[in-house]
Amino acid sequence: MAERLSSEARKQALGGLAGWNETPGREAIGKTFTFKDFNEAFGFMTRAALVAEKMDHHPEWRNVYKTVEVVLATHDAGGVTALDVELAKAMNAIAKA
Amino acid sequence: MAERLSSEARKQALGGLAGWNETPGREAIGKTFTFKDFNEAFGFMTRAALVAEKMDHHPEWRNVYKTVEVVLATHDAGGVTALDVELAKAMNAIAKA
Repeated sequence: MAERLSSEARKQALGGLAGWNETPGREAIGKTFTFKDFNEAFGFMTRAALVAEKMDHHPEWRNVYKTVEVVLATHDAGGVTALDVELAKAMNAIAKA
Repeated sequence: MAERLSSEARKQALGGLAGWNETPGREAIGKTFTFKDFNEAFGFMTRAALVAEKMDHHPEWRNVYKTVEVVLATHDAGGVTALDVELAKAMNAIAKA
């Protein structure tokens, strides 16, 4: 199982993840993605969903028209793990593509 | 433009929409759909997204693994309209399919 990152390791990982921040009041990381329209936003979600399903590690996310708010945490580990960092990186790459 | 439904018309429409309720503190309707797993939940979202895009009327929704919480309102009309009722019906049909 992926190990929970320490507060320091989490901060270090966030340093390499453009736009991601600690989620207030939770041991989790989050980012709000903003796209041109619903087509782009849901296209991003679809590509990210395929990555998440393959990883067997899923986001919490909320979509309102062209925005997608994502929160990542590893429930079994009670915090943020390497899986969350990997999924966050993949989402950033998809959003830029 | 779709006209905002009165409180009475909204209640009447909800009577025909299994599982949908008034959203507390907002003039909107909502439902939480629960599926077997992420595959089913995101499959539902994908089919509903195509319907929403075709209607040019989009949901606010949040997905966590196998659940999808949906809120529908028509921002331009400041409340619930026939568009929301139509999208809610379509979502119920997709979830049952």
